[in-house]
Amino acid sequence: MASIFSKIVKGEIPSYKIAETESCYAFLDIFPLTEGHTLVIPKMEVDNLFDLPDSIYSELWSLAKRIAPAIQKAYPCIKVGVAVVGLEVPHAHIHLMPINSIQDINFARPKLQLTPEILKASQEKICKFL
Amino acid sequence: MASIFSKIVKGEIPSYKIAETESCYAFLDIFPLTEGHTLVIPKMEVDNLFDLPDSIYSELWSLAKRIAPAIQKAYPCIKVGVAVVGLEVPHAHIHLMPINSIQDINFARPKLQLTPEILKASQEKICKFL
Repeated sequence: MASIFSKIVKGEIPSYKIAETESCYAFLDIFPLTEGHTLVIPKMEVDNLFDLPDSIYSELWSLAKRIAPAIQKAYPCIKVGVAVVGLEVPHAHIHLMPINSIQDINFARPKLQLTPEILKASQEKICKFL
Repeated sequence: MASIFSKIVKGEIPSYKIAETESCYAFLDIFPLTEGHTLVIPKMEVDNLFDLPDSIYSELWSLAKRIAPAIQKAYPCIKVGVAVVGLEVPHAHIHLMPINSIQDINFARPKLQLTPEILKASQEKICKFL
């Protein structure tokens, strides 16, 4: 069965798209740790990040490098944190999120509940700086 | 003043080295979240990962891709987690660590206290698979 992320890439499940390249796609995490929390994924459905072909792995990290400064401008923060965990959805994904404290990148804490209006505004805010 | 990581790269502070490339260096985190926790850093002292020149950024992630499978073989785990936080040492660094639960990548929890003997054994164990 296609992963939830493959369905997002195909447009079968809607997403707040941030950017797209030939092999990669970026969109807002709808269960974010902080506002601006973005996922960067390969379109190819591979569970383990390190199993990606080198070219797609490289394209994925290049896309993250393009998006991170836009997140930082949209949400001024000490750093844009990076995490790849992969204990839930079996489709490799990079988390990028504005962080000001270690709790902002603690996946063990409850996620934010944001309204569609807030997510839409967040998407526009980040895309403005891309 | 040179960062603690620059001193490690220069050999002024000893480290449990895992691998090295022209512009990058990898070594064990001596305050690990899990056994096998490794740091991958650029030799160049840049605070923010995303401010690195593209070529070094790319070399850094390539080195992480080479080391992660060795960590996974040395410490069988569900995934090798990735994190870039950067709220403490102002020298960009990628954390790679074997993870089996979300707590294994929670930087808010206390770090492990490992003896030099355990760290040395860990270094040998990972390097065997490189």
